[in-house]
Parts: sequence; C-alpha cells; structure tokens
Amino acid sequence: MNIKPVQQAAELRVQDHIDSERLRTAIATLAQFGGRDDGGVTRQTLSDIDLASRRFLIERARALGCSVQVDDCANLFFRRAGLQNDLPPVLTGSHGDTQPVGGKLDGAYGVLAGLAIIEALDDAGIQTRKPVEVVAWTNEEGSRFGPGCMGSSAYVDPSRLQQYRRSLDGDQISFGDAVDRALNEITDVPRRQPLRPLDSYIELHIEQGPVLENAGATLGVVTGIQSVRWYTVKITGMAAHAGTTPMDVRQDAMATAVQLAHQLYAEAATRAARQLRLTLGRWTVGPNSINTIPGEVEFTVDMRCVDEAVLAEFDAAFKRIVADHAWSDRIEVACLFTREPTHFPPSMLALIEEACAGTAERAGKAPPLRLTSGAFHDAMYLAGFCPTAMIFVPSRNGISHNATEATDHDDLVLGVKALAAAVTRLAA
Amino acid sequence: MNIKPVQQAAELRVQDHIDSERLRTAIATLAQFGGRDDGGVTRQTLSDIDLASRRFLIERARALGCSVQVDDCANLFFRRAGLQNDLPPVLTGSHGDTQPVGGKLDGAYGVLAGLAIIEALDDAGIQTRKPVEVVAWTNEEGSRFGPGCMGSSAYVDPSRLQQYRRSLDGDQISFGDAVDRALNEITDVPRRQPLRPLDSYIELHIEQGPVLENAGATLGVVTGIQSVRWYTVKITGMAAHAGTTPMDVRQDAMATAVQLAHQLYAEAATRAARQLRLTLGRWTVGPNSINTIPGEVEFTVDMRCVDEAVLAEFDAAFKRIVADHAWSDRIEVACLFTREPTHFPPSMLALIEEACAGTAERAGKAPPLRLTSGAFHDAMYLAGFCPTAMIFVPSRNGISHNATEATDHDDLVLGVKALAAAVTRLAA
Repeated sequence: MNIKPVQQAAELRVQDHIDSERLRTAIATLAQFGGRDDGGVTRQTLSDIDLASRRFLIERARALGCSVQVDDCANLFFRRAGLQNDLPPVLTGSHGDTQPVGGKLDGAYGVLAGLAIIEALDDAGIQTRKPVEVVAWTNEEGSRFGPGCMGSSAYVDPSRLQQYRRSLDGDQISFGDAVDRALNEITDVPRRQPLRPLDSYIELHIEQGPVLENAGATLGVVTGIQSVRWYTVKITGMAAHAGTTPMDVRQDAMATAVQLAHQLYAEAATRAARQLRLTLGRWTVGPNSINTIPGEVEFTVDMRCVDEAVLAEFDAAFKRIVADHAWSDRIEVACLFTREPTHFPPSMLALIEEACAGTAERAGKAPPLRLTSGAFHDAMYLAGFCPTAMIFVPSRNGISHNATEATDHDDLVLGVKALAAAVTRLAA
Repeated sequence: MNIKPVQQAAELRVQDHIDSERLRTAIATLAQFGGRDDGGVTRQTLSDIDLASRRFLIERARALGCSVQVDDCANLFFRRAGLQNDLPPVLTGSHGDTQPVGGKLDGAYGVLAGLAIIEALDDAGIQTRKPVEVVAWTNEEGSRFGPGCMGSSAYVDPSRLQQYRRSLDGDQISFGDAVDRALNEITDVPRRQPLRPLDSYIELHIEQGPVLENAGATLGVVTGIQSVRWYTVKITGMAAHAGTTPMDVRQDAMATAVQLAHQLYAEAATRAARQLRLTLGRWTVGPNSINTIPGEVEFTVDMRCVDEAVLAEFDAAFKRIVADHAWSDRIEVACLFTREPTHFPPSMLALIEEACAGTAERAGKAPPLRLTSGAFHDAMYLAGFCPTAMIFVPSRNGISHNATEATDHDDLVLGVKALAAAVTRLAA
C-alpha cells in the first residue's frame, strides 16, 4: 500500500534547500576527526579526538546562528529558535562517537543531517512555530564505556548518570572523569537543565544491515527496535600440557565451549526464518597458548529477535543446552543486559511514512519500506519520553561497525530531505 | 622384566649425598623468581625475572666451584672439572624458563638436579674422569618467542640462531635483542664456542602427564618423544553489526571456526584409543566485540601421537575437513612446526633403566616404567648430537603448564638420585 503523499509548501521548500555538496563536505570534514588510512574512523566517546570534533560541531552550529547547550552527560544541543519558544522543541540528531574501528556515517550522519536542516530552514527563510534542536548524544556505542546509549538514557532518566559515572574504560579512566574533562573544555557553553520536555524526536541513521538494499528501497520507516539479550558463558576446565595429557583425562574448556557453541548455532539456525539472530562475538581463552589445553574459556552470546516470543523460546533452549551438558556445574552463565522490543507510535510512523513516500516519489525512487531496527539507537530511550521515530537509509552490502561502511551519497541526501520534511511538519 | 641392578660404589656414595632438604630449598628459592600468589611461576624466557634467576644460578654454581660459560643463544653451562678435561663433558640439565603461567618444576627441576649432583659429588669427594656440566637452556617453552627449544636446537645447529634472532614477542621485541640484553648483563661470564662436543646428555624432568602416577611408578625411563605437528587455521569472514545482519547473509568467521573445531574434535575422538592428542589452544578473534560478528578467527592445532602412522592419518583427515568446507577458499592453513618422533638409543636406555631400577629398589619402590614423552624437551634436539636419554618423575594428577603443577618431594629426591647414578657412571 502506498500512502498518498500530502506535502506542504514549506516542507518542499526546505527539501529543495538541502545542499548535496555541503552535506558531502560536512560528512568528510567530521570524518577527519579520527580518520584512518583504511577509510574508517576511530573516534571513541570523549577521547581527545571526540572532544575536538565536539568543538567543531559547536562552532559550526553557532555559525548557523544556533544557541548551544550541554547537559550533565555532555550531550550537546544546537537550537534554532521558533516563533513560540516556550513550546518544547522538535529534536533530531544522533551520536558523534564511533566504534574502535567504525565508519564515517554511523551516528555522524544523523547529527550532520540535523545541522543541514537548520541550514536549509535558514536558506528557505522559514520560521517554524516550535524550536528545532539538533542533539549529539554522548557514548551511544558503549565500546569505551559500557553500557551504550548513556547520553540518551541519562536524558530521560538523569538518576542513571551517577552509576554511569563509575564506568571504567580499559585504562581505568572513569566515565565521570571523562565527562568532567569534556565539560571543562567547553565552559563557554551554557549548561542545560535536566529533563527538559521535548515535542518529539526523530533520528536519521544508516540501516547498518542489508534489508533496504536487498529490497531496492532508499528510505526505511523504522517501526521499532528488536529485543536483545546479552550473556557471557564461562567454562572452567583445567589447563594442562597438550603433549602429555591423554584425551580421556583432559578437562578441555575449549572442547566444551565448541560443543556448546555448535549446539547454539544449530538451535539458532532452526529459527533464522523467524529472524532470530545469534552472535558469539567475544572470546577469551586462558592461557591461550598453542601447547596448553585451554583451562578457561569465556564467550559472549548476543541474541536478538523482532519477535519477543521467538527470543524467549531460544533463550530457554540456550539455558537447556547448558543445563543438559555433562559439565553444567562448570559452566557459568551471566546475563549482561536485556532489552524488551521498542515500538514507535503509529502516529509518528504515519508521519514519517508520508514524509518518506513524498520524498521518494519526487525523486523517482521506490516507496519507503517499513522495517525493524536490528541495532540499538538513542531513539530506543527517547521512545519512552516523547513521540519518537527513526528513518533509515541503506548501508552498502549491509556493512557497518567496519571501516568500509558506506552509503550512496544520493541516498544520504534523500534521507536528509525526508527528515527535513518530517521535522518541518512537526515544528511548523 | 626387572633389570638386575649393578651399582658401583661411587654411584651409591653420590646418591647418599643427595640432600633432600637442600633440594627442597633450592626449588623453593628458584621458584621465588617469578613466584605467583597462586603458587605458580611466571618466568618467561629472557624476561627481567628470568635474567635475575640466571644471575642467581650463576652465583650458586660458582659457589660450588663450577666454572660458568654462556653461548651465543644465552644457554648457561656450569662445569665441574674432571680428571681428563680434554674429554667431552657429560651434560645434564634442562631449562629455566616457564610458560606464561607455569609451575615450580617444569625445567627448573632438571637444572637444580644437576647442581645438586655437583654438590653431592663434592660432598662425596668423588673425582670423575670426564667433566660434568649442567646446562640451563634458553627458551624451551616457546611461549614468549616461537619456536620452543631454541637454545638446544641452536646448540646442535648454530646456523638456526640467525633466524631465531628475528622472532618477535607480543611487544615486538626480537629474540636477538633479548639475547643481547641477557649477554650484556653477564659480561663476567666467558663466551662458549659453538658446537662443543658432548659425551652424552641426560635430562631429568617431571612427566607432565598421568602415566607414571596411574601405574604407581616413581621413575620413568623415557624411550623417546612423540611426533607433533602444529598448524594455524585462519578463517576470514566479514565483521558486521550483530543486530542488523540477518543470519542468511552473514559471513561469520566464528560460526565456521566452530564447525571446523567440532569436526576436528570428533575426528580426534575416533583415534583417542590409539593415543592421538588434539589441542586447539590459542584463539584470536577479530574484532572480538560482543555486538560485532567475528570477521576473522585464527586458532592453533596441536596434534601429537606416539604412532606416526596415526598422526599422518589424522593430519589427512584434518586437511580433508578444511578442503570439504563450503568456505574452503576463505580458510588458510599454515604449518608452524612438525617434528618426527625421537627415539633414544638402546645403550642409553639400558644405562638409565639400570640406574633407575637400582635406585627404586634401594628405596623400596616399584621398578621404573618405560614410557614415551608427550612433551617436547631439549633432549629431542640433543638426541641427534650425542647419546641422549631422559628420566621422568610423576606429576601429581598429571598436571603441568599450570600453577598447581606438583610432584611429591620424595619422588623428586628419587629422580635426582637416579640421575646422579647415571651421570656418575657416564663420567666415571
């Protein structure tokens, strides 16, 4: 079913003022902060290079006439005033940090899209009724400090910040110290009070998966975010000499880990059609020596599904596999994180779909596709705070969290235009 | 069949001068170099703590009246003169380095046993015809710099040293630089010329396996060393986001690694009764992040067997498993090391068996057991250079390469007495 696009004149004018080359330059410029020889970006949250990029964003927003605020979690807000400035703002944006080895677009695209819309609103001479704000959330990735989405989750529940401040990175630096340092470098930026109400939040992001590309669609209307559960599985055997220990007396933690992993992959395969996703991503082997039988193996289990029932079923199978193993008393399972699915409200989905459909039609592109996000996003936390939605653009070959992450530039431009229409309608 | 022990008076006198408490103290003292809270020892080759332990051994040997030499591979030689010093020496000893987490005995025991015999020869007032030398070989373990047994293999073929010097540790320090540093710290020790001939070599070592303990024997006559092949298996997939990438488009290097490992364990299990041993000990996963699909996995394969034919059969099965895998073009197998079985000469086995049998009988213990070594030892390389043999004492629960590695002290004393008899007979 195609939604008949009904676009207002102001939305079309803003879209027409989105400048493709300026967007290209903005993405390339931000990517220089932490740019790598392999084309990727290393800009972990609150690192020196992230602080430098924040200063760049602040100066760029000020050049556009925005006022800038920062909150206690170092989230940055760039505000374009509306006609009624006592109304809560329409917020858009994303995050500026990257994975240890990330690409140019994950997060950065959404922040720069917001600034591009402010520029286009200016150029089109449009005054919105409500203020429009662009946010750059702190530590979405969660790779330097765990957990991820600290900035957005602390925005909607500031009581979380005290615990986040104790989170340590690999060098034993606390998130609290890193935030204080970031704040001290921008004492010219006024502090924002916590829990400021928002009219709505829309986040534009690359899909980071292959669904849009495979479907031939350029714009994705994100209906929600799939649920996820994270575990560690730790197997304790006995390290011993690889040459001297007969097979029948070994307590080989890796042999057991491989048995468990093999069963988990097989169990997941039976549910792949129901969109269960299983990743055994991080492995720690002790002592990790060629000629020593592994005495201890820990691996992580990342299970996700759009269908909470399928996820619960798989989780039960996982626990059963562990309990049924001959070594069950030497296998420790710890839950690191669980998150129920997020569903964006129908009214926002309808608005986003209309904006995307109109934009796609004008560009002669296929209509937008509704899809679920496989990744976490800051929008996950905002969804419990204000009407929230997300727009996706394709990721080439579905690749993200990788230096080769890429999206066709025309698709990036189209995404910003769709976002511009939605923001303008919400704010007008 | 029990060999009728024929022991000469000198051998018995030397044995009677092996001092149990001095041996206990010597082992405890050396174990303080790199001693760990868990009772283990971390004294990787040519580390600061290894250099300190070398200085300790040098001073201890000098206190016993030994002259000390060091060769270009930093092997240390402690020499007790004989009546005919132009004769090649009888050499005993082992290595002083440990695994990243090792025990107090692996290597150290053989070196300290040699010094204990020199002390006992002195105390018994015995002059041997041939000189007796004790060696502490460099880098037997091969855990900091690969391959293992560098010191002994470079002794018998000094041309190997140039290549070994380029071997890098995890901090990119070369073995050559580490050796030069070790030599610079002991400029008071004269340099030994390469390829000095040896009368014979006997190495006393803990078994590092459960065979002696399970058989109730205290002394083991090692007939040879099983063959071994070392490989790395490297699987190249594509790192991608764990949440956004559907199962059917993933290139998950860990899923493939687990399939291969599962097949290898199953294939090995069919040959366990024929004493095939398989260890997948070292795993490297990239990027090793909880929410990223592994893009690259490398694991090591250590396969060993006393029966070369069984090993060759398993090796062929391993290659077939890789070739038959759907991803075979993305799996690289590299051979790191192979070693044919070592067989010690019958004349040396007879001499060792006689020394062990006599020692066991005098102590009221079960007769010695002939067995094959599952581990590499420096004796493996010496066997091609001079008449060589090994004596084993039991390892409690067969455990080694582990902080809990242990041997009953009485067994350690008996091992030194058997070695003392053999060395005295060879040198007398």
